[in-house]
Amino acid sequence: MSTPDRRYVITLGCPDRTGIVAAISGFLYRLGGSIVGAGYHTDPETNWFFTRQEVRADSLDLDLEELRARFAEVAAELGDRTEWRVSDSGTRRRVVLLVSRAGHCLYDLLGRVASGELDVDVRAVIGNHTDLAGITEAHGIPFHHVPFPASGREPERRAEAFARVAEIVDEHDPDAVVLARFMQILPTELCQRWAGRVLNIHHSFLPSFIGARPYHQAHTRGVKLIGATCHYVTADLDEGPIIEQDVIRVDHGDSVADMVRKGRDIEKVVLARGLRWHLEDRVLTHGNRTVVF
Amino acid sequence: MSTPDRRYVITLGCPDRTGIVAAISGFLYRLGGSIVGAGYHTDPETNWFFTRQEVRADSLDLDLEELRARFAEVAAELGDRTEWRVSDSGTRRRVVLLVSRAGHCLYDLLGRVASGELDVDVRAVIGNHTDLAGITEAHGIPFHHVPFPASGREPERRAEAFARVAEIVDEHDPDAVVLARFMQILPTELCQRWAGRVLNIHHSFLPSFIGARPYHQAHTRGVKLIGATCHYVTADLDEGPIIEQDVIRVDHGDSVADMVRKGRDIEKVVLARGLRWHLEDRVLTHGNRTVVF
Amino acid sequence: MSTPDRRYVITLGCPDRTGIVAAISGFLYRLGGSIVGAGYHTDPETNWFFTRQEVRADSLDLDLEELRARFAEVAAELGDRTEWRVSDSGTRRRVVLLVSRAGHCLYDLLGRVASGELDVDVRAVIGNHTDLAGITEAHGIPFHHVPFPASGREPERRAEAFARVAEIVDEHDPDAVVLARFMQILPTELCQRWAGRVLNIHHSFLPSFIGARPYHQAHTRGVKLIGATCHYVTADLDEGPIIEQDVIRVDHGDSVADMVRKGRDIEKVVLARGLRWHLEDRVLTHGNRTVVF
Amino acid sequence: MSTPDRRYVITLGCPDRTGIVAAISGFLYRLGGSIVGAGYHTDPETNWFFTRQEVRADSLDLDLEELRARFAEVAAELGDRTEWRVSDSGTRRRVVLLVSRAGHCLYDLLGRVASGELDVDVRAVIGNHTDLAGITEAHGIPFHHVPFPASGREPERRAEAFARVAEIVDEHDPDAVVLARFMQILPTELCQRWAGRVLNIHHSFLPSFIGARPYHQAHTRGVKLIGATCHYVTADLDEGPIIEQDVIRVDHGDSVADMVRKGRDIEKVVLARGLRWHLEDRVLTHGNRTVVF
Repeated sequence: MSTPDRRYVITLGCPDRTGIVAAISGFLYRLGGSIVGAGYHTDPETNWFFTRQEVRADSLDLDLEELRARFAEVAAELGDRTEWRVSDSGTRRRVVLLVSRAGHCLYDLLGRVASGELDVDVRAVIGNHTDLAGITEAHGIPFHHVPFPASGREPERRAEAFARVAEIVDEHDPDAVVLARFMQILPTELCQRWAGRVLNIHHSFLPSFIGARPYHQAHTRGVKLIGATCHYVTADLDEGPIIEQDVIRVDHGDSVADMVRKGRDIEKVVLARGLRWHLEDRVLTHGNRTVVF
Repeated sequence: MSTPDRRYVITLGCPDRTGIVAAISGFLYRLGGSIVGAGYHTDPETNWFFTRQEVRADSLDLDLEELRARFAEVAAELGDRTEWRVSDSGTRRRVVLLVSRAGHCLYDLLGRVASGELDVDVRAVIGNHTDLAGITEAHGIPFHHVPFPASGREPERRAEAFARVAEIVDEHDPDAVVLARFMQILPTELCQRWAGRVLNIHHSFLPSFIGARPYHQAHTRGVKLIGATCHYVTADLDEGPIIEQDVIRVDHGDSVADMVRKGRDIEKVVLARGLRWHLEDRVLTHGNRTVVF
Repeated sequence: MSTPDRRYVITLGCPDRTGIVAAISGFLYRLGGSIVGAGYHTDPETNWFFTRQEVRADSLDLDLEELRARFAEVAAELGDRTEWRVSDSGTRRRVVLLVSRAGHCLYDLLGRVASGELDVDVRAVIGNHTDLAGITEAHGIPFHHVPFPASGREPERRAEAFARVAEIVDEHDPDAVVLARFMQILPTELCQRWAGRVLNIHHSFLPSFIGARPYHQAHTRGVKLIGATCHYVTADLDEGPIIEQDVIRVDHGDSVADMVRKGRDIEKVVLARGLRWHLEDRVLTHGNRTVVF
Repeated sequence: MSTPDRRYVITLGCPDRTGIVAAISGFLYRLGGSIVGAGYHTDPETNWFFTRQEVRADSLDLDLEELRARFAEVAAELGDRTEWRVSDSGTRRRVVLLVSRAGHCLYDLLGRVASGELDVDVRAVIGNHTDLAGITEAHGIPFHHVPFPASGREPERRAEAFARVAEIVDEHDPDAVVLARFMQILPTELCQRWAGRVLNIHHSFLPSFIGARPYHQAHTRGVKLIGATCHYVTADLDEGPIIEQDVIRVDHGDSVADMVRKGRDIEKVVLARGLRWHLEDRVLTHGNRTVVF
């Protein structure tokens, strides 16, 4: 049942002090754990310590629940502000995708899943338009159409639509809710309910060009690079912790349409990287900043 | 019939001398042509002149054949080594894709076509395995399975397989034959028959790591960046004119499998860019070098 | 006197219409001019045409003044909004540099000049501190110390200091005034007097992190890339036309001090590129955007 | 004497087994050591473990020699193939630079040293030409002119010249010998004597374009990116372990001279990064590959 590739992943954040690494590595050593990857970081400004440990599951004589119970004691000694998590790489992650009409991020993610590159269980795709129903269903994934009123109109119908979205999402208890160019602003209540699990791809190099039509803004300003940003969604629009960003060069010959096209290649890759890192428990947040191991 | 976006594209290469730009721009001016994009380059080493002109089709009172006939006179005056071409952006380009088992380039190209980003007619996909038949057919494109003998074995069966490939390709007279990680070496005869129309994506930053298993070679050498190269296929393996290249950073933590995964994102984008530029007549070759306007 | 490398450079901007290229290339053809580089661009939104032509000086029988006089007639036919310029690459460009205490851009530019990479005449370096006097004088360049009052204090003394700066600058009638991390905001009057000739390097990827301490802002926001921007200085702080930008990756392990250090390598290169392009008449502006040929 | 910024840096490589991290972190914990940075890596192919630990010097009650003595016991328990090193960031590193005529790397390094960015003691610059004597001495650093015979000629005079170089180098017992575009091939004997301490900057993206005139080779091949590589020098020319690489985009408009110019900006930065990492004990080698923490 335990294959050599199966890993337990331990992540932990707590106020820094001497002895944390010794405590964790001593704990794993006494269990015979074989560490195959370890990252450590201390943020000197907040004095916060972060770590991620990847341990071969077959090197331990414990199942996930037992490991969690034992590790809870280590974590407890590190103080009551300690945040930690132990997960099993053998458990397939569940994902729900929210889309609108632009398909490039959806095509890209589904291609990665179909080719085995991204080994996740896409439980559902929710769209406020039906444009992407066909490709979703061709991959054997249920597509849910939840129509939304035009922007800024009919707040009650909008609230109902979001209630329907929430119902579908919660049914699957996903590890990640991905706004794959969804174009609707998530209500504060859902941002909070799914805190740390909602990823958005914004089509600019944040904090430049917050809000609508960032490529138009970029063209007007005459920038020489355009970018994309994958971030956790919080109640402050486009202000959540940044997971990954990248840019691509443009020049005076690029129209807004060219920027939109070139930008897609960055959006797809940045979102795919961010989602992978999130699902592999590589992203730890503290305040509004991320540590990516 | 002529939309404002329809363009005639003129490309020309010839030995450099004074007056070429004047001759071409004067010709277009006399016809009332509205130039919406123009590129010029002279290679001082070979003294070769290159140009690409994009003219609004609705600014000319000529159809494609008439324009060609008239331009032939201009070209003739520039000497008998002149190479030129006039094409119509309103004609949808035909493409045939050759694949094996790795699907990332195919998924990516089909996604671009389906979302309208790449407006081409994918006439057929030919695979030496059937892994990618399903996704191809889900996009409504015929998939042809042409099995190949194991590498270096049964030359006669290999020749027969290539004859079958050639038959399918030639039936569609494509503007581009794309080796989308096809993994079989095209016979010299087909390289010559389709010269200037066959694009390959090689999974290294050529001329580094020519031949098989470039990511393994890259890992062994310990490079800090890996790359991909889109090039025209010639009889010399991995030596054809380079259209586009790009790289991505790797580090000591990346296994060969990680490099393969990261490299895919570069391969996809580099191939898509190279194919777009080829189909838009942006790539001119002279000797073993390309000019990309 | 005319070497094969000496060029006349013609730049022109005007409302687009058919026949401009034919007019310019016909003009040069009639003079026997050998074009060694040509760039064209039309901005469809503003319908503005831009071109830059590089002609071998020894292919023309005219000196610079004669060429200007003749070209003025061509330009006049293109309408009274036409902006143009004819320059001679054989004339060494004059530059004045304004610095404060951070030396990385100054060291870099002086190194490029000393090694012959940047063939310009640095007439003077003006500093509001004396830290960089030694290196400047070691390169045989006069250093002028003009002390400034603390930021936001003593507006009269500040005005006097800028009057002194203006006096030194104007004495040399420079082709470029370079704010090489000068850290003082140029008064509107000087922005206007030297319009199109003052280049600044801002240590962020504009429009992100306008104003003071951009690396601190970047660190607080948790961005994954930092950048630098070379732009023309206008009366609106950090809002002038962008000439060049670039970025470098950072991660959670980078403190503000690390960002400052990494950012320097981008600042130096972006400023050097922008200055080179400006001095080679490669940068044309229209409104708040640049075309870089 | 111990400032808060002073660190002891421990690096270690050994065959991997469970308990190494526990052993090292337990050791440091018992001494009260405050770890401010820690990197771990295991190479699964060679089963080799690498670590680098940065400890606040003022958190330990030991001086460097005592710490070394105590750590030697920990290292001994990890087996006799263990390689380790303990250094003190408070000790200024000594560097000797070897140059020829091209000054860009020298200007860059001296600028970094003068501005305090690179806090090292450049003990001497050795040149086989005198072009760079002036700038070296302007920085208050001794310049030694050691003329070399033309390439491939007078092997005896060449051997004598290298003997003189070795004499100067060894007099300073440097932490790094930097071939800053030195252009002479180091004899095998010196490669071995200074193994792990000689850094070269090669002006190509290795393994592409090994040997002479790489920009000419790159131009002939028509690549779309050019690069630079900083590597340790071994007896196999251009085959030593790679520390850092980077690339910059070129296009058909770039002559060999343009590539040389653009390439310089990459060479300078790649060499400066590689040298910094080497001097901060961030680079561990095993076989022909490096781990850069």
